[in-house]
Amino acid sequence: MSYTEELGIRAKAAEAAAAGASTLQKNNALAAISKALIANKELIIAENAKDIVNAKANGMTEAKQDRLKLDEKRIEGIAKGVDELIALADPIGEIIGGGCRPNGLQIIKTRVPLGVIGIIFESRPNVTVDAAALCLKSGNVVILKGGKEAINSNVCLGNIMRKAIEEAGLPADMIQVVDKTDRETTTELMRLNGYVDVIIPRGSANLIQAVVKNATVPVIETGAGNCHVYIDDSADLGMAVEITDNAKTQRPSVCNAIESLLVHKDIADKFLPLIAERFKQHDVKIYGCDKTISILGDTVEKSTETEYATEFNDFIIAVKVVDNIDEAIAHIRKYSTRHSECIVTSTLENAQKFQKQVDAAAVYVNASTRFTDGGEFGFGAEIGISTQKLHARGPMGLTELTTVKYLINGNGQIR
Amino acid sequence: MSYTEELGIRAKAAEAAAAGASTLQKNNALAAISKALIANKELIIAENAKDIVNAKANGMTEAKQDRLKLDEKRIEGIAKGVDELIALADPIGEIIGGGCRPNGLQIIKTRVPLGVIGIIFESRPNVTVDAAALCLKSGNVVILKGGKEAINSNVCLGNIMRKAIEEAGLPADMIQVVDKTDRETTTELMRLNGYVDVIIPRGSANLIQAVVKNATVPVIETGAGNCHVYIDDSADLGMAVEITDNAKTQRPSVCNAIESLLVHKDIADKFLPLIAERFKQHDVKIYGCDKTISILGDTVEKSTETEYATEFNDFIIAVKVVDNIDEAIAHIRKYSTRHSECIVTSTLENAQKFQKQVDAAAVYVNASTRFTDGGEFGFGAEIGISTQKLHARGPMGLTELTTVKYLINGNGQIR
Repeated sequence: MSYTEELGIRAKAAEAAAAGASTLQKNNALAAISKALIANKELIIAENAKDIVNAKANGMTEAKQDRLKLDEKRIEGIAKGVDELIALADPIGEIIGGGCRPNGLQIIKTRVPLGVIGIIFESRPNVTVDAAALCLKSGNVVILKGGKEAINSNVCLGNIMRKAIEEAGLPADMIQVVDKTDRETTTELMRLNGYVDVIIPRGSANLIQAVVKNATVPVIETGAGNCHVYIDDSADLGMAVEITDNAKTQRPSVCNAIESLLVHKDIADKFLPLIAERFKQHDVKIYGCDKTISILGDTVEKSTETEYATEFNDFIIAVKVVDNIDEAIAHIRKYSTRHSECIVTSTLENAQKFQKQVDAAAVYVNASTRFTDGGEFGFGAEIGISTQKLHARGPMGLTELTTVKYLINGNGQIR
Repeated sequence: MSYTEELGIRAKAAEAAAAGASTLQKNNALAAISKALIANKELIIAENAKDIVNAKANGMTEAKQDRLKLDEKRIEGIAKGVDELIALADPIGEIIGGGCRPNGLQIIKTRVPLGVIGIIFESRPNVTVDAAALCLKSGNVVILKGGKEAINSNVCLGNIMRKAIEEAGLPADMIQVVDKTDRETTTELMRLNGYVDVIIPRGSANLIQAVVKNATVPVIETGAGNCHVYIDDSADLGMAVEITDNAKTQRPSVCNAIESLLVHKDIADKFLPLIAERFKQHDVKIYGCDKTISILGDTVEKSTETEYATEFNDFIIAVKVVDNIDEAIAHIRKYSTRHSECIVTSTLENAQKFQKQVDAAAVYVNASTRFTDGGEFGFGAEIGISTQKLHARGPMGLTELTTVKYLINGNGQIR
C-alpha cells in the first residue's frame, strides 16, 4: 500500500465520526486546538526556526521569509482565528428544502459534509491551522499538503492539532498533515479518487494550474485574479481616484487587487493625471496604451497584450483608454480571470449593463474590488476564493465545504 | 485552429446572448424547436434509418437497436418534453441571498448560467434534444457529443434545433452538435479549458470513467448506481417484497434500480422465499452468500466480491444475509456508488441510524429507490443524476445548470 493510500484509508475511517459529530463536540475540539497552540508556542517557534534556517540557506527572499515566520504574536493571531470559528453557525444538518410529493413521499434536502478534503498549499504555515479548523467545523476530514519550505512548522502544527482534537473526543485522523515533500506524493494525492472528495489548491497560479491539469479528483480552483476597474465618463472623479488607488495599492499581493485600469476617453485627460499623482506615492509602475502615454508622458511604459494578461500582484498597473463601455466590457471579457470587476459610474444604465454583461464572481458598482473576501462578505471566514463556476463561486465559507443529501421517507411507495 | 477549438470559440461567442436572453425569448425558442421537430418528422426518421442500417451491419443487439430507433411516436414524445420545459420556472436571475454590510455595501447573490456545457453521451438520440433544451432554458450554451452509432440522427436533430432557435432570434451556436466521431475529438472536448465550463458525461460506467480520467475541464459524474435495499428484522415483510421487487424489476436497466439485497438474519428464513417467488416471475438470476443458498437452495449461485461490486443493470441480484443493521451499513459503505440506498424497517431508531450513517445522494426509508429522478422529485426535468458531491448531488434539474454571481453596489466604499 502506498503512503498516500494509507492517508486516504485513515481519512475515510474518520469520515463517519466527523460527519456525525455534534456542533458542541466540534466547538470543543476547536477550543482545544486554540488552547494547545498557545500552550505550545515555544515548540512551534522552535520548529519554525528550522524552516527559517533552511530558507536562509536556500537564499529565500526576505519578504518570503517574513511570510514563513511564526512568532508569538502570529501564533496568538492564528489561535484567535480558530476561536472565532466557534461562534459561527454550523452548516451541517441545515434543511435546505423539500416537501411532500403527490404520492405521499416526504423529501428532505439537507446539508452534509463533503467528506475528505485535500488542501494543497504553499509557504504560509498559518494555512495549516486555518484550513484544518474550517474543515473541522464543517464536519469534514482534511489532508493538508503544504510546501516543503514550511514542512517542520506544518508537521508540528498538525501534531498539536491532532492531539488536541483526540483529547476532545474526535479522531486524530480528521486532520492529517502530509510529511513527505516530494512531487510524486502531491500528484498521488490529487489522484486519490475514492478516498478524497475534493482538492482545493491555494497558492500561485503555477500551483493551481498543475493541480487542475493533473488531478482526477474534483478540484475547486481558487485565487487567480486579473481584476479591472473601469472609469466611466460619468464617474465622480474623486471617487474614481479613491477606488482605483485602494484597489491597486492597499494590498497589491492579493487576488482581489486590480491589475488593469480602463478609462473612458472623454475623461482620460482629467482622470489619468489625478490617479498618476496618487500612484506616485506608492511608486506604482505604469504600463499604458498610446493614449495613456500621450497624456502621462514618458514615465509610462508601453503596454502589450502580455501586460494586460498579467496578474502582477505588485505595485504595477496596466492602463488602457477605451472609446466606450462596450470596449471596456470586451477588454474585460478577453483578459479577466472572472474574479472581481468594477465600474465607477453615475449612469444607471451603464451600471446595469456592466453588472449584466461582465462575467465574474463579483461585479462591483462604485466600490473597491478589495471587498471580495469571506470576512468582508459576512461569511466569518473563508477557505479561498473560487474562480470557477462549478460548486462554489467567489469567497468560500463553511457552507461551500458542504454538499447535500436527500432523506426520503415513505410508507411503502413504489413506481 | 483545431476543430474543437473552433467549436469552443463559436460557443463562447454565443454565451453573452444566451445568458442575456429573457425567459420569453427562451420559451419562444423552445416552442420553435418543438414545432420544428414535428414538422421534420420524416427527415429525422430517414436520417435515423441510416443509423439503424449501420447498427444492423455492425451486429448491434436488437435491444440496443430499439433504443437507437426514432419513430413518429418517439419524436412526438421528444417534442412534448421540450414543450413541458416552457412551463418550468426560469432559474436565471433568481436572487438567492444577500444583504447590506455594515459599511453600506449592498451584496446581491444571484443565479447566472454556467456558460458553456459539454455533454458527452451514448446511443439514445433523444438525449440530443433533451439536453439541448435544458441548457437553452437555463441560459447555457451547449456542445453535444453523442455516440458514433447515432451520428446521423444527432446531426439532423442538431441542425433542426439550430435553425429553429435562430428563427426565434437566438444564436444558432447556442446548440452545436459535434459531427466527428473519432476518440481524439472527444478527448479534446474534455480539455477545452477556457471555452467549456463543465463536462457532463451520460452513459456507461466506462464512458464516465474515461471522462473523469482524461478531462481537465470540471466534470459532473452521473449515473453509476450500485444501489442496495436492506430489509431490517422489524420490516413489514409484505412492504419489503413490494419495494425490493419494484426496485429490482420495474426497470432494471436504469441507475436507480437496486443491484444488491441485504436481509437481517432473523427474518431471512421467512423473507427470502417470498422475494424469490416474486423474482421468479421476472426470471431474476440470484447470486447469494452461503446463508442465502442454504435457504433458497441450489438455484442460487455463490456471490463473490465481484457480484457485490457489480452494477448489473439487468434481471440479476446479489443477496447477502447480515447479522444486524451495522453489518448492512458497513457493506453499503464498502460497495455503494452513493447513489440511492434504502432501508425497510418499522424501527424509528434504525431508520434514523440508516439515514444518518449511509452516505448517498438519496437515502430512503420504506420506499423504492426508483424514485431518485428529477421528475419524481418534482424538478420537472433532469439532465442526469450526479453521484459526486461537488456542485450537485442527486437529480440535476435546471437549477443545477447554474452558478452564482455577486452583484455589489456601493457609493465609494474602500478598505
